[in-house]
Amino acid sequence: MSSAATRPAGPDDLWSVDEHLEDILSTVRPLEPIELQLLDAQGCVLVDDVTVPVSLPPFDNSSMDGYAVRVADVAGAGEEFPAVLEVVGDVAAGAADPVRVGPGQAARIMTGAPLPPGAEAVVPVEWTDGGLGEGPVSGMRARSLAPEGAEGHVHVYRSAEARAHVRAKGSDVKAGDLALEAGTVLGPPQIALLAAIGRGTVRVRPRPRVVVMSTGSELVQPGERLAGGQIYDSNSFALTAAARDAGAIAYRVGAVADDAETLRSTIEDQLIRADLLVTTGGVSVGAYDVVKEALSYAGDADEAGSGVEFRKLAMQPGKPQGFGSIGPDHTPLLALPGNPVSSYVSFELFVRPAIRALMGVTDLHRPRARAVLKADGALRSPKGRRQFLRGTYTDGEVTPVGGAGSHLIAALAQADALIVVPEDTESVEPGSEVEVVLLG
Amino acid sequence: MSSAATRPAGPDDLWSVDEHLEDILSTVRPLEPIELQLLDAQGCVLVDDVTVPVSLPPFDNSSMDGYAVRVADVAGAGEEFPAVLEVVGDVAAGAADPVRVGPGQAARIMTGAPLPPGAEAVVPVEWTDGGLGEGPVSGMRARSLAPEGAEGHVHVYRSAEARAHVRAKGSDVKAGDLALEAGTVLGPPQIALLAAIGRGTVRVRPRPRVVVMSTGSELVQPGERLAGGQIYDSNSFALTAAARDAGAIAYRVGAVADDAETLRSTIEDQLIRADLLVTTGGVSVGAYDVVKEALSYAGDADEAGSGVEFRKLAMQPGKPQGFGSIGPDHTPLLALPGNPVSSYVSFELFVRPAIRALMGVTDLHRPRARAVLKADGALRSPKGRRQFLRGTYTDGEVTPVGGAGSHLIAALAQADALIVVPEDTESVEPGSEVEVVLLG
Repeated sequence: MSSAATRPAGPDDLWSVDEHLEDILSTVRPLEPIELQLLDAQGCVLVDDVTVPVSLPPFDNSSMDGYAVRVADVAGAGEEFPAVLEVVGDVAAGAADPVRVGPGQAARIMTGAPLPPGAEAVVPVEWTDGGLGEGPVSGMRARSLAPEGAEGHVHVYRSAEARAHVRAKGSDVKAGDLALEAGTVLGPPQIALLAAIGRGTVRVRPRPRVVVMSTGSELVQPGERLAGGQIYDSNSFALTAAARDAGAIAYRVGAVADDAETLRSTIEDQLIRADLLVTTGGVSVGAYDVVKEALSYAGDADEAGSGVEFRKLAMQPGKPQGFGSIGPDHTPLLALPGNPVSSYVSFELFVRPAIRALMGVTDLHRPRARAVLKADGALRSPKGRRQFLRGTYTDGEVTPVGGAGSHLIAALAQADALIVVPEDTESVEPGSEVEVVLLG
Repeated sequence: MSSAATRPAGPDDLWSVDEHLEDILSTVRPLEPIELQLLDAQGCVLVDDVTVPVSLPPFDNSSMDGYAVRVADVAGAGEEFPAVLEVVGDVAAGAADPVRVGPGQAARIMTGAPLPPGAEAVVPVEWTDGGLGEGPVSGMRARSLAPEGAEGHVHVYRSAEARAHVRAKGSDVKAGDLALEAGTVLGPPQIALLAAIGRGTVRVRPRPRVVVMSTGSELVQPGERLAGGQIYDSNSFALTAAARDAGAIAYRVGAVADDAETLRSTIEDQLIRADLLVTTGGVSVGAYDVVKEALSYAGDADEAGSGVEFRKLAMQPGKPQGFGSIGPDHTPLLALPGNPVSSYVSFELFVRPAIRALMGVTDLHRPRARAVLKADGALRSPKGRRQFLRGTYTDGEVTPVGGAGSHLIAALAQADALIVVPEDTESVEPGSEVEVVLLG
C-alpha cells in the first residue's frame, strides 16, 4: 500500500511526521461521486463543471413595483404636468401571458414580473399617484383591499429612459456560461446559484463516513460509575466530534475491550458503513496492545494492498501510529495512540487531512501561522522529535497552556493552537518566533 | 416589541442598519437550556460552570509500557550490571486490584494501568530484556503469543527516580477544579474533557430550529420545468444552507404562493417546530406583497409584544425588511426581501446574528477587516444608503465581483466578502481603504 518514496527501512526506524502524512495522502483517494439533492450536498465538492442551461433572468422583468410604460408616453412628465395613462391591468410576478401595453397605456407591474409586450420601461410607484388621483404615493394598495386590481388612469410625475428599472434577460448569467467549476465547495451562495439555474440535484463527492472506536479494558462510558483502575472513555467522543468538524458523517462505536477477537469482529461489522476507520489505543509496545495484535492478522494475503503497518514517528505526543487498509474494499484505517492528547493531536495532523482528501477538497490542512512565544521560561523539547505543544493564540502571540504530558486533557480544552517545535530544536526561548497550527 | 431606544417615527422614515439590528438583538433571547447527550451538544453553549467530580487521572498510573519497580532495586543498574528482579505478574490497564510489588520484585505494567502497591516508579520495557534474557528489547511480546503473562525474571539496564513514568493522581485536574466555564462553546476538546470527567450529558442551549420559506407565485422548484414568467426558487435553499452554517437546525418549507391566507396558515402550521421564522419576498410596496399583507393581521391584539413591523432601511440591497414576533410563544420572525442577493445579504446582517443570539454565543457577527479596494474604476453608492457590494478578499485587498444589482446571484457565488460603503459616501476610489465583512 505504500508509495515508492524513500521510507524508513526497519521496524524500529523512526518515521518523520511528513513521511507518515505523505504515506496516508498517497493512499487515500477521493470518494466516488454521487448525485445528491441540493441541500444534502452542502459542504461537498462539485465533481463536474456546471453550465447555465437557461439565462438568468429568463426574461426581461421589473426591478421595482410600479408601472410598465412606453418611453414616449412619459417624456417630459413632471409634478406639474404629469403624464396621464390608461391602466390596462396588473402584471404580477409569475404572469405567463401579461397584458399588452399600447400607446397612451400603462400596466401596473410588480417586482420580478415580466415586462409586458409593448412596454419599454418601468416607473416606480413612488413616481406616480398609484391611480388614486391624489398626488405621489408611497406604495400600492394591497390586493385584498382593492381586489379589482389596477384600472382607470395613473398620473406619472417623472420621465423614464428606455429599459429603466428593467432587468434584462441574461444580465445575471447567460445560457452556456460556466456557473461553477468542478472542485467548488458548495456553500450557501453556490447552492443559491445551482437552485436559481434549476438544478434540483448535483453530482458531488459525498461526506466520508468515519467510524470511530476507542480500545481499552480500562474504559468506562461517561455517566457510569468508575471502579478501581478504570477511567472514562473520552477519545471516542472527542474524535467523533472532530471528524464531524472536519466534514465527515461520524459514527461513534465507543470503547472495545482489549481482546483481539472482539476488536477484529467489531471492525469487520463496522466496515459496511465506513469510508475510514479510526481507532485509539493499543498501538504501542505493550503486551495488551490489542489493535496492533488484531490488525497484524487483518491483511488478507490474497488481497494486494491490504494490511495495517505499525510504526514509530519522530513526534511527541503521538509516537506510535498505525496506518493501512482493511477489508474487501481496502477501507483506510488509522490507528492512533490512546492517550487523549496524543490521539487528538494525531487526529489533527493525520486523520483530518485524510477525511478532507476523501471529500476531494484541495484545502486539506489547518491554517498555520508564525507567532511570538509568550512564556515564563524556555520550552524544552526532546531532540529528534517534532513536538506539538498546546497553546492559545492571539494577535501573533502564542502562550503555552499546560505541560507536555499527553494525558493533560484539561489544558487541551483551553487551547486553540498547537505550537510546533522542530526535530532539531531542544529549547525555545520566550520571544522567539514559532510555527503554530491554528485549531480554529 | 421594540426597545425604548430612539427609532424612526413615521412609516416612511428610514431605519439605519444598526437601528434595525439593535431592535432584533434587543428582542431575541437565548433559548432555554436543555440536558443533551454529549455528542448532541457539539457546537452548543454550556449554561453552567462544570466542576471536576473526580481527579484526573483518578489514580497514579503508568505513562509507559514497562515494569513497575522499587527505586532501591534498580539503583546503579547498567548495561553491564543490570538489576535482576523477580516478575510477580502483569498489571493491565483497567486492573482493579493489582499485584503487590515487594523488595527485589517487579510487575510488568501497561500504559494507563494503576501503579501497583509497593512500586515507586516504572522503567520502560526498552530499558529491560523483557524477561527474555537476551539483552534490551523494543517491546513486549503480545499476550496472544505468550498467554501465560509475565513470569520469571527481568533484567533492568537503567536506574529510575521515584515517580519516573508515573502520572500522578490529579495531575491533569483535581476534584473541585473548574473544568469549563458557563458560556463555553463545546468543540471536540471540550467534549473530550467532559467525557473524561464522566459527564454523559450536559446542560446547554439547544441549536435553534429555523424555518425558512420563500414566497412568490413566480417560483418553481429546481428540477421542474419553467413556464412563462416563472423563475426557480433559490432563496429557500440558500437561506436554509446559511442557517445551518450559522449553527441552526434548519427546515426548508419551500416556496409559498402569493396568497395571504395560504401564507398565514403555512406559518401557523410551522410555528410548532420554529424558534425563528424567516421569509423572503413580499415585503415591499407592491399590491401583491403577501408577507406584508398576511402578517399585518398576525399580531394578536390580546397578546402584548406580538406583531410584525415592516420598515424601510437606509441600505442597498435590502431596503424593505420586516421584523417582529408571531404566535402564542412570540416566535421571532424576520421577513427579508425577495431578490436573491438582497435576501442573502439581509441574512448575513440580521438573521445570522439572531440565530447566534438564540444559541447564546457572544460572538454574534462575521469578522470584519479593513481592505484596500482593487478596482478598475470608482465604486458608486447612493447617498444616504449603506451599500453592501460583493467582493473577493485576499491579503488585505478586496476586488468587487459583479455589479450592484440585487439579482446578480452568479457574482454572489464567486464572492467571499461584502464591501461596506457607508451612508455618507457616494464614491470610493481604487486604492482607498474600505471595510469588508468576511463571509468565511
